Amino acid sequence: MSTTSRIAHIAIVVEKLDDALRFWRDALGLPLAHTEQNPAENVEIAFLPLGESEIELLQPTAPESGIGKFLARRGAGMHHLCLEVEDIEATMERLRAHDVELINETPRERPDGTRYAFIHPKSAFGVLVELYEAPRG
Amino acid sequence: MSTTSRIAHIAIVVEKLDDALRFWRDALGLPLAHTEQNPAENVEIAFLPLGESEIELLQPTAPESGIGKFLARRGAGMHHLCLEVEDIEATMERLRAHDVELINETPRERPDGTRYAFIHPKSAFGVLVELYEAPRG
Repeated sequence: MSTTSRIAHIAIVVEKLDDALRFWRDALGLPLAHTEQNPAENVEIAFLPLGESEIELLQPTAPESGIGKFLARRGAGMHHLCLEVEDIEATMERLRAHDVELINETPRERPDGTRYAFIHPKSAFGVLVELYEAPRG
Repeated sequence: MSTTSRIAHIAIVVEKLDDALRFWRDALGLPLAHTEQNPAENVEIAFLPLGESEIELLQPTAPESGIGKFLARRGAGMHHLCLEVEDIEATMERLRAHDVELINETPRERPDGTRYAFIHPKSAFGVLVELYEAPRG
């Protein structure tokens, strides 16, 4: 069986990164590893490592983006849960065999070689789940 | 500074544990460690270890309970994020010094010696955060 190894990150949508960092970094004491702009998704992201996982804070940079609409509709809060898997294709095949609906039918790939795919929340009982496979070294 | 060491668990509210387990256990392949009834909170919980964390599925056993009302109002989905801290009192003191509002003014204790307290979601930008300190050995 393909193995799900860890929570890679929890993504949290916030209105303003600077405000949210006052809680997550300054009050709670998590380190801020870095921030980055993701123009393709219209989002700015702050990465805060926590054990073997990360807290990712997402600030929409355009109201019409997916994250911008989520913020307008639901307010700030947890957006998705990302799980690292050893073999994303094997995991996706197994999910399909259990009639789980995937948002991405094939893995998408980031420039760093990371591959990912989202599971539809209706198949995951209300949770938007991202599968993530690290680059093969 | 008091250290926040890991994501202890993500709690997910579901309508029926058996249905949700078909996704989390059967399709995704996470092991089910055990289930337990929590009559004080009117909830039945399934624990699925994942790396250094756990996925906790919460099924309300009474519609008027806190979890029952959450399900009725928001639908199934992520409910709270639990972080392990080394020293819960030091963490709470630090949070208060940063004007963070706590739901529990002092740590609550479970029979196993676990201590916990919740941070108000308005101070954590929409996320209900639980702090957890393991029993001191």
